[in-house]
Amino acid sequence: MRRIAMLVFAICTVPLAAQQKDQLFTASREQLDVTKVLLAQEAAWNSGDLDGYVSHYKDAPDTQAILGAAAHGLETIRNAFRQNFPNAESMGRLENSEVDVRELGEKFALVTGKYHLSRSKKAGGDATGTFTEIFEKTAAGWQVIFSENT
Amino acid sequence: MRRIAMLVFAICTVPLAAQQKDQLFTASREQLDVTKVLLAQEAAWNSGDLDGYVSHYKDAPDTQAILGAAAHGLETIRNAFRQNFPNAESMGRLENSEVDVRELGEKFALVTGKYHLSRSKKAGGDATGTFTEIFEKTAAGWQVIFSENT
Repeated sequence: MRRIAMLVFAICTVPLAAQQKDQLFTASREQLDVTKVLLAQEAAWNSGDLDGYVSHYKDAPDTQAILGAAAHGLETIRNAFRQNFPNAESMGRLENSEVDVRELGEKFALVTGKYHLSRSKKAGGDATGTFTEIFEKTAAGWQVIFSENT
Repeated sequence: MRRIAMLVFAICTVPLAAQQKDQLFTASREQLDVTKVLLAQEAAWNSGDLDGYVSHYKDAPDTQAILGAAAHGLETIRNAFRQNFPNAESMGRLENSEVDVRELGEKFALVTGKYHLSRSKKAGGDATGTFTEIFEKTAAGWQVIFSENT
């Protein structure tokens, strides 16, 4: 358990639970795996790689992303993201905080947290809010089946 | 299956899937049970019974509601709702539509949809957006463990 805690601490730029800031904490293998995907999404976003970001969504008709309005299915979701973030400048720099990973049974997990987008005024300016993602453990690993930003 | 479909149709004021408007559709026992709770919440809301609405949340520290900011635990959630909706007039009349119930394994379900709040201008005016609720099948029945409105 200790080793997992150290590993989580090493790969997480933010603590899993905001209440325990600056504290070591333990996480299950599932929480750790989901966190890795979240960090991969953050890294893809911050290199302006929107396709890489969206590639973590499950390719299924009932996969859903809410960016203002609800988008269903991977192609529609990709287009919605492209419309909202047409280039690397509009994507800005994403930083997640107060990330919490909660297992929902063995095959699903709920991730909540805050996001902060640093952007030039020209590209839309900074944006802050909460995000929610639901992950499913599929044959291809943990994939996003639902996301929402406020 | 047919009987369940008719029953769902009878108790639902809105179709489970918006794409299939004016069509009969089938639903699992779990989807039906979750829908009943959702309708009970809607009914409580529309009689100005905020406590009744919140009573469908699971009384656990990790139960979470996002009303702008995140509130954790039943007491904090109740207070957040009370602050946002101090009386029946500010609660207005709630109508959900395009409700979709998706099972996440055997013990969890994701419910998404649109809401419309009809209110007098004095009470804040109409409001429209999307809602998300995650339910857990507990010993006390299906309870809300997460909610978010945009």
